[in-house]
Amino acid sequence: MFDGVLARGRVPEAVSDAAWLRAMLAAEAALARARGQEELAGAIAGAQLDPRELGERAAESGNPVVPLAEALRGVAGPEAHRGATSQDILDTALMLVARDALAVVREDLGGAADAAARLAEEHRATPMIGRTLMQQAVPTTFGLKAAGWMRALDTAGARLGEYRPAAQLGGPAGTLDGIGPDVAARYAAELGLEEPVLPWHTERSRIAELAAGLGTACGAIAKAAGDVVLLAQTEVGEVRETAPGGSSSMPHKRNPVAAVSARACARQAPGLVATLFACMEQEHERAAGAWHAEWAPLRALLVATGSAADWLRTCLGGLQVDTERMRADLPEFDEGAVVSAAALVDRALSARPGA
Amino acid sequence: MFDGVLARGRVPEAVSDAAWLRAMLAAEAALARARGQEELAGAIAGAQLDPRELGERAAESGNPVVPLAEALRGVAGPEAHRGATSQDILDTALMLVARDALAVVREDLGGAADAAARLAEEHRATPMIGRTLMQQAVPTTFGLKAAGWMRALDTAGARLGEYRPAAQLGGPAGTLDGIGPDVAARYAAELGLEEPVLPWHTERSRIAELAAGLGTACGAIAKAAGDVVLLAQTEVGEVRETAPGGSSSMPHKRNPVAAVSARACARQAPGLVATLFACMEQEHERAAGAWHAEWAPLRALLVATGSAADWLRTCLGGLQVDTERMRADLPEFDEGAVVSAAALVDRALSARPGA
Amino acid sequence: MFDGVLARGRVPEAVSDAAWLRAMLAAEAALARARGQEELAGAIAGAQLDPRELGERAAESGNPVVPLAEALRGVAGPEAHRGATSQDILDTALMLVARDALAVVREDLGGAADAAARLAEEHRATPMIGRTLMQQAVPTTFGLKAAGWMRALDTAGARLGEYRPAAQLGGPAGTLDGIGPDVAARYAAELGLEEPVLPWHTERSRIAELAAGLGTACGAIAKAAGDVVLLAQTEVGEVRETAPGGSSSMPHKRNPVAAVSARACARQAPGLVATLFACMEQEHERAAGAWHAEWAPLRALLVATGSAADWLRTCLGGLQVDTERMRADLPEFDEGAVVSAAALVDRALSARPGA
Amino acid sequence: MFDGVLARGRVPEAVSDAAWLRAMLAAEAALARARGQEELAGAIAGAQLDPRELGERAAESGNPVVPLAEALRGVAGPEAHRGATSQDILDTALMLVARDALAVVREDLGGAADAAARLAEEHRATPMIGRTLMQQAVPTTFGLKAAGWMRALDTAGARLGEYRPAAQLGGPAGTLDGIGPDVAARYAAELGLEEPVLPWHTERSRIAELAAGLGTACGAIAKAAGDVVLLAQTEVGEVRETAPGGSSSMPHKRNPVAAVSARACARQAPGLVATLFACMEQEHERAAGAWHAEWAPLRALLVATGSAADWLRTCLGGLQVDTERMRADLPEFDEGAVVSAAALVDRALSARPGA
Repeated sequence: MFDGVLARGRVPEAVSDAAWLRAMLAAEAALARARGQEELAGAIAGAQLDPRELGERAAESGNPVVPLAEALRGVAGPEAHRGATSQDILDTALMLVARDALAVVREDLGGAADAAARLAEEHRATPMIGRTLMQQAVPTTFGLKAAGWMRALDTAGARLGEYRPAAQLGGPAGTLDGIGPDVAARYAAELGLEEPVLPWHTERSRIAELAAGLGTACGAIAKAAGDVVLLAQTEVGEVRETAPGGSSSMPHKRNPVAAVSARACARQAPGLVATLFACMEQEHERAAGAWHAEWAPLRALLVATGSAADWLRTCLGGLQVDTERMRADLPEFDEGAVVSAAALVDRALSARPGA
Repeated sequence: MFDGVLARGRVPEAVSDAAWLRAMLAAEAALARARGQEELAGAIAGAQLDPRELGERAAESGNPVVPLAEALRGVAGPEAHRGATSQDILDTALMLVARDALAVVREDLGGAADAAARLAEEHRATPMIGRTLMQQAVPTTFGLKAAGWMRALDTAGARLGEYRPAAQLGGPAGTLDGIGPDVAARYAAELGLEEPVLPWHTERSRIAELAAGLGTACGAIAKAAGDVVLLAQTEVGEVRETAPGGSSSMPHKRNPVAAVSARACARQAPGLVATLFACMEQEHERAAGAWHAEWAPLRALLVATGSAADWLRTCLGGLQVDTERMRADLPEFDEGAVVSAAALVDRALSARPGA
Repeated sequence: MFDGVLARGRVPEAVSDAAWLRAMLAAEAALARARGQEELAGAIAGAQLDPRELGERAAESGNPVVPLAEALRGVAGPEAHRGATSQDILDTALMLVARDALAVVREDLGGAADAAARLAEEHRATPMIGRTLMQQAVPTTFGLKAAGWMRALDTAGARLGEYRPAAQLGGPAGTLDGIGPDVAARYAAELGLEEPVLPWHTERSRIAELAAGLGTACGAIAKAAGDVVLLAQTEVGEVRETAPGGSSSMPHKRNPVAAVSARACARQAPGLVATLFACMEQEHERAAGAWHAEWAPLRALLVATGSAADWLRTCLGGLQVDTERMRADLPEFDEGAVVSAAALVDRALSARPGA
Repeated sequence: MFDGVLARGRVPEAVSDAAWLRAMLAAEAALARARGQEELAGAIAGAQLDPRELGERAAESGNPVVPLAEALRGVAGPEAHRGATSQDILDTALMLVARDALAVVREDLGGAADAAARLAEEHRATPMIGRTLMQQAVPTTFGLKAAGWMRALDTAGARLGEYRPAAQLGGPAGTLDGIGPDVAARYAAELGLEEPVLPWHTERSRIAELAAGLGTACGAIAKAAGDVVLLAQTEVGEVRETAPGGSSSMPHKRNPVAAVSARACARQAPGLVATLFACMEQEHERAAGAWHAEWAPLRALLVATGSAADWLRTCLGGLQVDTERMRADLPEFDEGAVVSAAALVDRALSARPGA
């Protein structure tokens, strides 16, 4: 009912149950392959399992890997899952799912940043009034405002681009007993994941880093979308969206739906980030709840960020700028400010990665 | 994949898309009926609509009521939705959905509290060591510990029981223009909802109260579940669950899955509560994002609380208490403390609502 | 450096170290008095102690009551603090401090609500454009907007007014062993606090309720302050503050400093509320960290709410309303909407407690 | 009253009002120097101002730089503060204060990590039972557990070490109008801060990054402190602190005060992180509240992290390990697991920065 607004774009598919199942099977298969059990790996990779059934049976043990491992032993023989603990497979799958979802998020963030960059370039010297504490202050250019959005989006995207998803493999107590470092290294390599120095079952800085990166992206999106909403106010009218939305009762309304929706998605982030940071306190070698508590907020945070980025890309990609209205709000034209602002825009554009 | 653990029980159905659609149709039909348009009300109530399609089309306007109203006008004629604004229908539906979900949550909370009460009664004078800062301190009884869980669960349930869901009807700017107070009063009465003094489109203390009530319930659940996890530690062994869970790699493990899962669900709450409190800042007569931002966390919070309550009910309902182990951790038996603790248990039991 | 903005008003004094020390001494004296040890009570009440020194010595044991009890035994004899545990005194003091701070908060909230009520009354029929999703929509009156602020502030104040601070007394494991229910009852009565059914050392719904009440107040404040900031925008100009603030670089600026500061204070709340809800999970009979973790966010939340309320009272108390500008934004005057809105204002005003 | 527990160590001094004032004067002086006004810079640097008075007068304008600039103009002449906006000075000061506070935090984090490393090295092959979901599982070594703490602390410290505080200088609308890029470059260089590509008045990813780094450190600390608390339970007794704390009522208690206090401090973080992430949505060229809302949580987060790190350093630095008790909990000695765990410890130690 709300997914059109709050779960827009391609991340929902990337974090779907089907995607999680594929990732778990990939992890189990990689473990077999890392051991040189190619045939077993093939049988695992080809297993046809129903995520819904695994999900239901997860209630018995607290996680879906216990029924998954049982099912794989049935399908592929008793060697399946050998040496691994549930969390090895689930955390590795989480990293694979996150990697795919991040690729989508980064593409949409990049698209939004590109749109901001085009606005910055086109309007590098388009004068508008700067506003501080929501009061008209002194002149700037619309290009500089857009360049600020661009920088924030690029910064957030770059941060996510630096993220290095890591494999998880340690066995029940994380000692690699019965697995060995060579298998662990090959397992990571098979999956294209970083090999960690230690298993990280209860060392969750990777989750916190992911959460922080997504939260930062949402903050950057909320800033830009908020500015659009403010500039699109009837009384300001300096920008408008290409495809504003109507109302169920007021046909004349031209609501900046994309910016509004981007804000709505982005505002999910701080609370979810807090949940994930709070979950860092995990007991001993496997947490009694804090680990399981990560799954929902992480998925929700990926979806919210992807949705927010997709909305902002739509919003900025078609943003209509009313330069006359901007000029009208700025009776005294200050050439020095415009030149100075335009020079900053140029600097920001040339500092873009790939510029 | 994770619903067996994190979305247990009957709340997911109560907050499903189908439930939301039913609630929105009930609101639209009640509006017609409040105007005396019985036939229209019937046509609306019988409309066959696809929530998925509404959800997708919601992207055009930012909320699913715009396509809903359009569809109803097609099915039931141009009078459908007259006078209402999207938020009237959506907020009213939210209250109906919350009312149904709260009934489930309260039943499960009550079941968990009843189980705690049984433990309190049975073990009112069962001595065990009290533990402060996780160190053995001085004696108490297991019944007093269970009575503490019971009080917290009852308090949370009573708070949710005081919640008065209210109708929302005000029209586009919340003035009741073209609707009138009589229609608003009948609309609320039709739906069995409280009639508010004013429309509350951007006065969200009702949402905050709901969030706080659910968050308090989760806190009460987390406390009890956390104690069970601690008491079930191998080294303590004073309680165990009836149906502990296994492990994908260690067949001998007897994990307190219900308590662990209850904790995992309950830990979703503080961050979601924060999101909903932050959303109270809503602009003018309809917020540009903060309203839309409520839908996902409210649904997630209802699901998490319901799931946590259901897990705790399972956990406490079958909790096995090892009174000998408790005695063994308590070499010196302190009669006075036991008598004093048992008297408190009696007081708490007789103070129960309905006791 | 930031207290002028973020810690305005009288709450900082009410939650100061000196206030805490007074409250702890009151609790210790009440315990003596509840036992009939009047002389001891007098000696305790008159003790001259240095909160800074207690604070420093608190590091040895983890809380300031351990050195406090030791000091009192030195000053007033070995009977001081008998039977109580540190948390009895600290939680009771917390409730006393909160009671005093809440009185201040409620007075300022009430003052802000009164100011909103005056605006509602005066402008019950002052037409202005309603704005949804920050777009001009259909007419309302400024009085109805102000009545919405008033309702939210009154609701929040009423909720805080229902708060019943409770005494804490249970001894080390909360059994009342060596204290007895009669002493506990007199202790509570001495202090004017509610006597709880059970000691609540690790049943923290009272803290959650307090946090939720404060968070709701902050949400109500943020909503009103946010509207003022939006209405005071240069391009809207429908309201202005009596004493707007200047700028370090732009002498012409007229910033709505009170509304801006109220927002800044109010935004502290959601995160602090989340921390306090997360702290509800407390182990066994005394938590190993989650209890101690409450002190700072609770104090910060009281200060933030009090400061926000004080700012909003200032803001609304002197708000200048430009009815001509409102009319100018509303070319077509809709009489029905004004009449309807004015009637709602009348209803809201007559529903005020004490109206 | 609570600072001994919650504000331990040297960060409180580093973020004090006096430190903020020094930093603001340093920023103002650097601006003068960047313009070649050495004499002015000297007069500014030598100004004797009272932070309390600035703080009080900050209420007039919403920030303490307005009265600061006025005072400096009085002391050092009208050229003081020329071109800068309040936020230039305050954000730059914030970065200077954070830089100093981070140095302290990193030193204490490093000290705690060193202590963990020593435990890891000494106990690389000390067998203990691994615990999953708080149940005894399969063997590991205490060294591997300590190595996990070390990695988390080192990771968090390294992340904070990568933080690049940046200068802020842009003038009222962030255009550098009247300042120029050369002055901005020299200003940053004078202060040893990074020169940003653009002014970042409303691009707050730097604040989010700082918050995330501190939150991650708190998570790492909470994990280690939580394990200590669990291992120090009377029933487990595998570790104890050198200087455990007493109780106001139970002289025999040996509470792990340092670990408990570290947890209490660390749990402040997630909510504060959420507040700072939520503050990223800042309007136009200067936010109407969200900027001011950063000051308190940032300060509180620095203090909490520093205090938590200091407590953990104390805790781990003197941790007493009862290897016999560990052996007793582990009847069947698994040589392979110990060898495997010890090899992981060696790998982790040799991967330490500076190893």
